[in-house]
Amino acid sequence: MKSPHRSYVHGRTERETDRLNYQASALAGLLHYDTRYPAGSRVLEAACGVGAQTTILAKNSPGAEFVSIDISPDSLARAKLRVSLEGITNVTFRQADVYRLPFGPETFDHVFVCFLLEHLPDPHLALKKLKETLRPGGSITFIEGDHGSALFYPDSADAHKVIDCLVQLQREMGGNALIGRELSHLMTDAGFTGITVSPRLVYADGSRPEYVEGVKNIFIAMVDGVKDQAIARGLLDNETWERGIRDLYRTTEMDGSFCYTFFKATGTKES
Amino acid sequence: MKSPHRSYVHGRTERETDRLNYQASALAGLLHYDTRYPAGSRVLEAACGVGAQTTILAKNSPGAEFVSIDISPDSLARAKLRVSLEGITNVTFRQADVYRLPFGPETFDHVFVCFLLEHLPDPHLALKKLKETLRPGGSITFIEGDHGSALFYPDSADAHKVIDCLVQLQREMGGNALIGRELSHLMTDAGFTGITVSPRLVYADGSRPEYVEGVKNIFIAMVDGVKDQAIARGLLDNETWERGIRDLYRTTEMDGSFCYTFFKATGTKES
Repeated sequence: MKSPHRSYVHGRTERETDRLNYQASALAGLLHYDTRYPAGSRVLEAACGVGAQTTILAKNSPGAEFVSIDISPDSLARAKLRVSLEGITNVTFRQADVYRLPFGPETFDHVFVCFLLEHLPDPHLALKKLKETLRPGGSITFIEGDHGSALFYPDSADAHKVIDCLVQLQREMGGNALIGRELSHLMTDAGFTGITVSPRLVYADGSRPEYVEGVKNIFIAMVDGVKDQAIARGLLDNETWERGIRDLYRTTEMDGSFCYTFFKATGTKES
Repeated sequence: MKSPHRSYVHGRTERETDRLNYQASALAGLLHYDTRYPAGSRVLEAACGVGAQTTILAKNSPGAEFVSIDISPDSLARAKLRVSLEGITNVTFRQADVYRLPFGPETFDHVFVCFLLEHLPDPHLALKKLKETLRPGGSITFIEGDHGSALFYPDSADAHKVIDCLVQLQREMGGNALIGRELSHLMTDAGFTGITVSPRLVYADGSRPEYVEGVKNIFIAMVDGVKDQAIARGLLDNETWERGIRDLYRTTEMDGSFCYTFFKATGTKES
């Protein structure tokens, strides 16, 4: 089995950490507004990364106790620092692989997973393992993107080509950048009930400068982050890459528009 | 100038009328909930077609007076019948071309336009003409789809090919099936102010049977409606077409999912 650590498509640089933090704060309202856990409940956050979602989760449910895991000790160290700098005290961190969770069955009241499944070669196994740690009647929440949802004006074949490179590279690493649309069937296959999928569309145009910044700092930065890999692998030549990235930035000018859809899904483990 | 009447891509059959009526009722809440006109205001509905949106508009704003125009006398006759059968009395119908509006300047307090711009060779001219009929300070509302927003599981190259045929045919008729993403720049170019664009994503999966029916009866029916034209024009062979349509229906099965985004935009004519 491929390690999700070694195969993480987005890299682990300082710039990438900044990108993940920016992403979490810009999208916090849209993605987290309806996630609140009761006081006293035990919540597993699987794959917390650098803690970008952890701080939001923990602040939104100050009475809940979070156990946040990640496979990368380096990411965990950053997440710990961040949480402690923000004075958050209801999170415990633990290094762990989502495929081999070091918890007994039915340990958690709720499970929260954000931007993990897209990186996993075997999301079905991850759902099975996460379900085992959940008590009957407990809830599970997934948030994933779907790069096929990128829709923009002016449209550009080259821009779609660079996005397709990221999709292709992620696929070669065993991941799936188009997984948002699949949450319903993945959760159904895993036997969760009461599944609801709620797509969250982010729309940016000249009248929404804060979202336009998000398109640049989150989406275009993420795509451009795989440039060297894409060109080294021969997926695209340098000129087409540059045109594609230029055309993506073109959509962030005053008369452009850009849409991206995240998928949030919740379900319950049957009692 | 091409007539929008002769070039209407979706045809004018009984089945098409049923499709348009179904579409309007299924989507009424999503698209219309935030459109309410004050009592006494005069509202132009441009391109009312068979009246599918007219009845919703008129019922939602019973104190407003609507003037609903369409270029097709046949569509107007159907719209009139429908409105009268529903006992609606605040709508006047008039046959008119959006490019040559038979109204003086600043006649209307508000303008409402739904699923028109996608069919027009010159949307800029239509916006200019509509703006002339609007009083300063009055609002204009557009609702348009964007076929590039179709996102589904299981994904299928053939399904995208049949959708692309509809986009291509509409383009050859002078229209633009990807116009939803362009509302912001079209309205900016026309000089409207206070522009807000609100994308409305429809999501269907096995847990939402009413929306799944909508995907079949609205979207797939619309795409399959241009089969003969697409094959006659040599855009696709019959086998690929059949596979594409089959794959679209496949997304409406229990484990499938389907997204489509409508764009609603409002703006104001500066006082």
